[in-house]
Amino acid sequence: MAPASETVEAERAAFRAELVEAGVLTPTGVDGLYHRSGAFEAVVRGVEGLASRASNGAGGPTSYFAPIMPRELLERTDYLRSFPDLLGVVEVFTGGDRDHADLLQAAADGEEWARFFHPAEVALCSAACHPLYPTLTGALPVGGVRHEVQGYCFRHEPSTDPVRMQSFRQHEFVFVGEPDGAVAHRDAWLERGLEILGGLGLDVRAEVANDPFFGRAGRMLAANQRATTLKYEITCPVSSSEVRTAITSANCHEDHFGVAFDIRTPDGEPAHSACIGFGLERITLALLRRHGTDPERWPSDVRGALWP
Amino acid sequence: MAPASETVEAERAAFRAELVEAGVLTPTGVDGLYHRSGAFEAVVRGVEGLASRASNGAGGPTSYFAPIMPRELLERTDYLRSFPDLLGVVEVFTGGDRDHADLLQAAADGEEWARFFHPAEVALCSAACHPLYPTLTGALPVGGVRHEVQGYCFRHEPSTDPVRMQSFRQHEFVFVGEPDGAVAHRDAWLERGLEILGGLGLDVRAEVANDPFFGRAGRMLAANQRATTLKYEITCPVSSSEVRTAITSANCHEDHFGVAFDIRTPDGEPAHSACIGFGLERITLALLRRHGTDPERWPSDVRGALWP
Repeated sequence: MAPASETVEAERAAFRAELVEAGVLTPTGVDGLYHRSGAFEAVVRGVEGLASRASNGAGGPTSYFAPIMPRELLERTDYLRSFPDLLGVVEVFTGGDRDHADLLQAAADGEEWARFFHPAEVALCSAACHPLYPTLTGALPVGGVRHEVQGYCFRHEPSTDPVRMQSFRQHEFVFVGEPDGAVAHRDAWLERGLEILGGLGLDVRAEVANDPFFGRAGRMLAANQRATTLKYEITCPVSSSEVRTAITSANCHEDHFGVAFDIRTPDGEPAHSACIGFGLERITLALLRRHGTDPERWPSDVRGALWP
Repeated sequence: MAPASETVEAERAAFRAELVEAGVLTPTGVDGLYHRSGAFEAVVRGVEGLASRASNGAGGPTSYFAPIMPRELLERTDYLRSFPDLLGVVEVFTGGDRDHADLLQAAADGEEWARFFHPAEVALCSAACHPLYPTLTGALPVGGVRHEVQGYCFRHEPSTDPVRMQSFRQHEFVFVGEPDGAVAHRDAWLERGLEILGGLGLDVRAEVANDPFFGRAGRMLAANQRATTLKYEITCPVSSSEVRTAITSANCHEDHFGVAFDIRTPDGEPAHSACIGFGLERITLALLRRHGTDPERWPSDVRGALWP
């Protein structure tokens, strides 16, 4: 990310202060980590319900994933290669009484006590659809499969911009199957996403985008992703009226996950996949910015759409 | 925990198989970590709503916490001393292109690549009420304060018993204030918890309990906790008809958090605290065991209580 101008930074700080003042977010002392109020959560669930209904019952089975996932998925999805700086692994303590005494002594001495911890078999969830793919290994039916999934994701990018949270939920609609089905799914949901988010009074638009691939090699991957228009984002002014924020993303993965998890179309080819991910916290923040920090006072059509 | 008998293990395995067969839980390959179906999540939210309504509007402000929290809380709550074996710290990668190349090489060679990661400022949330206390530092009003909180907690105790998940939610009602207010809160909520859970057709009872304090020193702490009846659990047959499972716990913390977070009563004494934590996943599993794996077919009074 390019450094933001002073005006943008000031506007973000003012929005953050407004949210904190209203009790919607409570800072924790760690940048990008907040407690959320009951009102905030009610909006999150309203957005979730609105998105679910937009699938017209054709979203497929719904799964809720835990905020942790098997650590090996980071390797299988290639996340370790593409986004090492964003992910989080979990470490645990497996020692006995003597190690524990050393651990406590280190903590008392102000030393780094986490050195007594060892990598666990789990990591923080990297994207809401990642835990889905290993359940699909094998041959798919004709026409592919659709799944509706939700989970907390982790991104280690501490920031005081309230839209950049370290822990947030994505609500996704995923397709896995034939290549043309994947593109059609992405395009249909991109339209549908613009429609339902625009219907909430948000000033949304679709933009070609790229993921924040890591390092020197990543710059080429990002350029390639843009050139092939694999990724679109639905953007909207949230914490800045000048720099728009992605509140939803619609992606074609080509055969990336099909190959990685040995998911095949009926004719034996690696399956293609696509997803749209509604960023529940960011959409909630966009609504709070647009309609004010008290959802009780939002326009009745917005309230009706969220809580029918 | 004492090793379970073969009968108990077999019954747990059968219940797990039933849940997987019904598509309610999907195994991830890591013991104690599952994907949950939309139906499972609907029950979780139904239980949450039932508990919320039981507070009769007197539960205080509601907060939803992220599944991660500032790591320093593990030290301030003394969790690092009491339950080091259950907690999880988060590590992140902060290196450059060269470190990344080494990291990928290690992964390719099948070596432990997490050694390239370093402790982050966050850890997995240890208990749903822990992130609350630092927000209460200072002097409380007369009569104390009440808060309703929810969050995902992590416990590293991999198990094939479906009730022992590594990642699960607690929905808590917390009181912080004068000592007699804390005991009264705990006792009132224990009664209320028995009432609402019993009303769902669950065979519940309250039992004196203790936390699983770590190591040799922990055995004394556990015995002391039982002797002073600080902790009660609401238990119920879930995955075993013989060995009951705690589905809710009601606790007095005395001045533990008041001292740790400098929370004071109006007369300047360290505040006492108490909480009841409804284990949303375990209550959901108890209901699935009691009434069958298809909530659509549960008795109408149970459905009415969960989804009024």
